[in-house]
Amino acid sequence: MLAQKESSLTFTDARQLTLVGKALPADAFFHRIDTAVFPGIPPAVKHLLTHSAGLALSFETNSTQLVVKWCTNPRGPGDNLTAIVQEGMDLYIKRNGQWQYAGVARPTTHDCNEFAVVQNMAAGNKECLLYLPLYDETYSVQIGVERGAKLISKPNPFKRNILVYGSSIVQGASASRPGLAYPARLSRETGYNFINLGVSGSAKMEAEVAEMIATMPMDAFILDCVPNSSPEQVTERTAHLVRTIRAQHPLAPIIAIQSIIREGGNFDELRADQTTAQNGNFLREIRQLQSGDEGLYLITAEDLLGDDHEGTTDGTHPNDLGFDRMLQKIRPAVLEILRKHGI
Amino acid sequence: MLAQKESSLTFTDARQLTLVGKALPADAFFHRIDTAVFPGIPPAVKHLLTHSAGLALSFETNSTQLVVKWCTNPRGPGDNLTAIVQEGMDLYIKRNGQWQYAGVARPTTHDCNEFAVVQNMAAGNKECLLYLPLYDETYSVQIGVERGAKLISKPNPFKRNILVYGSSIVQGASASRPGLAYPARLSRETGYNFINLGVSGSAKMEAEVAEMIATMPMDAFILDCVPNSSPEQVTERTAHLVRTIRAQHPLAPIIAIQSIIREGGNFDELRADQTTAQNGNFLREIRQLQSGDEGLYLITAEDLLGDDHEGTTDGTHPNDLGFDRMLQKIRPAVLEILRKHGI
Repeated sequence: MLAQKESSLTFTDARQLTLVGKALPADAFFHRIDTAVFPGIPPAVKHLLTHSAGLALSFETNSTQLVVKWCTNPRGPGDNLTAIVQEGMDLYIKRNGQWQYAGVARPTTHDCNEFAVVQNMAAGNKECLLYLPLYDETYSVQIGVERGAKLISKPNPFKRNILVYGSSIVQGASASRPGLAYPARLSRETGYNFINLGVSGSAKMEAEVAEMIATMPMDAFILDCVPNSSPEQVTERTAHLVRTIRAQHPLAPIIAIQSIIREGGNFDELRADQTTAQNGNFLREIRQLQSGDEGLYLITAEDLLGDDHEGTTDGTHPNDLGFDRMLQKIRPAVLEILRKHGI
Repeated sequence: MLAQKESSLTFTDARQLTLVGKALPADAFFHRIDTAVFPGIPPAVKHLLTHSAGLALSFETNSTQLVVKWCTNPRGPGDNLTAIVQEGMDLYIKRNGQWQYAGVARPTTHDCNEFAVVQNMAAGNKECLLYLPLYDETYSVQIGVERGAKLISKPNPFKRNILVYGSSIVQGASASRPGLAYPARLSRETGYNFINLGVSGSAKMEAEVAEMIATMPMDAFILDCVPNSSPEQVTERTAHLVRTIRAQHPLAPIIAIQSIIREGGNFDELRADQTTAQNGNFLREIRQLQSGDEGLYLITAEDLLGDDHEGTTDGTHPNDLGFDRMLQKIRPAVLEILRKHGI
């Protein structure tokens, strides 16, 4: 809905606020990484790191309504994504210590939009997290509050830094809105800062990407990069990725995750064989590496999507039901590892 | 993906196959109802009944691949829907007595498309259900199988008829693909034929719609029509709807469902008040009617979406997680009522 009384609103450029979720500093405010620093990484990865996946603005306001104006790359959504998740936003507000859904910014065009995310709120301070578009480059965001209301930046509410490197599934396909990507849910549900390094279709463990990841100041690393790597690439590249990270982070837990069992392989036997080979090769590599690395863990594919085969949008990408089931397995496993390492 | 060897495929017009899910016969094959028979119903309802929501083709094939060509209304998807759910399709195949996801037909344009839903299957017969687009009028569907493979119509696999009258939520927003609309899930999971009479934004219990519903040869009726009706309409129209159905169906259970608690009202106090008033008025009406009607039941809103507030796409429409939670409450309640009535 459009704001009823726009003339009574004051807009603030989001660049004045804390942006949560960057893997490394970048001059381009809404890019996840400044890829100019890493000239060797593949062009597709560079492009995807301009998507604002996993980024959220942290601020506080006492306004009773919140309106956003924003511009993104004009590309429309993929066939397995809502416009809301690809190029829209969602807002969470803290209530009784928990982050709670408050509203959504619905795109009505594919470039620049304005939307009243929430209205008619009670008076008083609200601690806010506004998640940015998951599958588009964000060009600008302005946040409107009532004239006279305060809008101030807040610190990152999440502690430590845990990188999640992976495919479209990590980037968030096919969550229905940005805040439902699984790293974002992990952050809100655990209090740790899970950082979205999902690069749709391009999480292939290239040596240059491994070197980039190793430079990141992280307390732990989650590697969910099997789905985009061929069985041969899994065998050729997994050890190099793990060792490159380990060389720079001798004590950080590294948590490897097998690919979800693709529902597209329920009847397509070649697709099933592909996932079996990817996961088999990954298991073999990780088990070998674990013999010399006590900080390397593996979460296997069993039960990641439940057992009713309803957890994907398209046989490849979890829907919100599939993501919820993944988290039921991943969240306690990761929390146990972090605690064991005193993180 | 496109079929690899289209010249080796034989296409069959879907109109030669059984279409599951119609509320009443209609000359227009892909319309849910022939609304010309009911001239008094509102234009918006008539339009929505041209959407192929809840319709599925029932057939058997021994092909190892299945390709579809189809055309829909050229409208693109709403901001809270994937193209797959709005104008695509999904295929289920029976395995060990259970319907299991097999593939999806991804639209690459908004009008006519061709897609290989599944390939590389084992030899042998497959009993199939192909769900049609949920939020568009479907103009034509052709199903391609290998030349020489059989493709034969199968009967409706579901027993009895249970109408589900409701809003966009019943129609299927925001499931990620057509087969995940909640009436479709109920049919597959219970074996009963739940019929989708969801009319997005237009489930307002008008007298003409009540009369149309009462003509339908149903064994039970589910009324999930509170979300689109104002609190005043709920008070004015609920009794007329229930009594109009009851007059034609003296023994059929009628199962009324309160509106889900809208997550858009978590912080927007007016939206919260609206749902509270709708549900309060509905409860009052149903309780009064129940005193003279032993076949009238109420499923209340508590826990329909769980308690973490993550079950919607946009604060109004359940995502697949929200639908799963709704079914955890609705499915056993409905089954108990049907059994009690010997259905």
